[in-house]
Amino acid sequence: MNKLTEEEITFYMNEAIKEAEFAKMIDEVPIGAVVVHDGQIIGRGHNLREHSQDATTHAEVLAITEACAFLNSWRLWDCQLFVTIEPCLMCSGTIINSQLPAVFFGARDPKAGAVRSLYTVLEDSRLNHQVEVVEGIQSEQAAQLMKTFFKEIRQRRKKTK
Amino acid sequence: MNKLTEEEITFYMNEAIKEAEFAKMIDEVPIGAVVVHDGQIIGRGHNLREHSQDATTHAEVLAITEACAFLNSWRLWDCQLFVTIEPCLMCSGTIINSQLPAVFFGARDPKAGAVRSLYTVLEDSRLNHQVEVVEGIQSEQAAQLMKTFFKEIRQRRKKTK
Repeated sequence: MNKLTEEEITFYMNEAIKEAEFAKMIDEVPIGAVVVHDGQIIGRGHNLREHSQDATTHAEVLAITEACAFLNSWRLWDCQLFVTIEPCLMCSGTIINSQLPAVFFGARDPKAGAVRSLYTVLEDSRLNHQVEVVEGIQSEQAAQLMKTFFKEIRQRRKKTK
Repeated sequence: MNKLTEEEITFYMNEAIKEAEFAKMIDEVPIGAVVVHDGQIIGRGHNLREHSQDATTHAEVLAITEACAFLNSWRLWDCQLFVTIEPCLMCSGTIINSQLPAVFFGARDPKAGAVRSLYTVLEDSRLNHQVEVVEGIQSEQAAQLMKTFFKEIRQRRKKTK
């Protein structure tokens, strides 16, 4: 893959964080993702599970589907995915199936993360595709969005009890 | 879940095999799936990766998305998924995320299967959802469809060389 500069990595992760903020605005778990190809964002997504009532609508899946449509190819070669939180099994599998060469993520998800926390599927040499992984990009901002979101939900629940 | 009779299990797997045959007719890898709710098929899908050029369009994902739309819920409680071949990581993750309680599959996929072959993610007690798995339903028919498909592809490639 083309090596990205630190400035570029920060820029694209900030775009993923913007997507997470869009999710937060509509009361969805604040996770955002973008797919980059030749320096251009060709796919964007934020978690939409409650609005869509479709279990597949995580940020990464939506961004990957949009990128596939843009390139008219299920193979996302020469692309990078930026996502605020460590991908789950579904999203990691989608990353592998789209043959994305590189993933940058923010904070780990100890309960469902399949890239570093519970599994390391993106680097499994038994599969027919391996992914370069960089973690910890703007991780505090990404994690803070999640913490604030769940704290607010708990407070709202207390009020309605 | 409601216990299904052997006849019912055979009937639904035959419907999944029909879906796999639809995929074969249009030169897609022949894998099919159906989602059943209260005895009714509420989601169907066959692999459409080449036609859609979208990495997410495996049989299981399409069947689950259709079932979510039917129930207007991302939670596929009281549902069963029938799929001809062992689900990959993406599809297994989608099954977990939709909280499907039961999966019936035909033949194993030793290269990418995430339910029995490479991983056993549907029964991972660390995740917040576990799935009852039954394998080996009409497995010979499911496997034969795949074998014939890849044999024909190899023969076509030889001819064009």
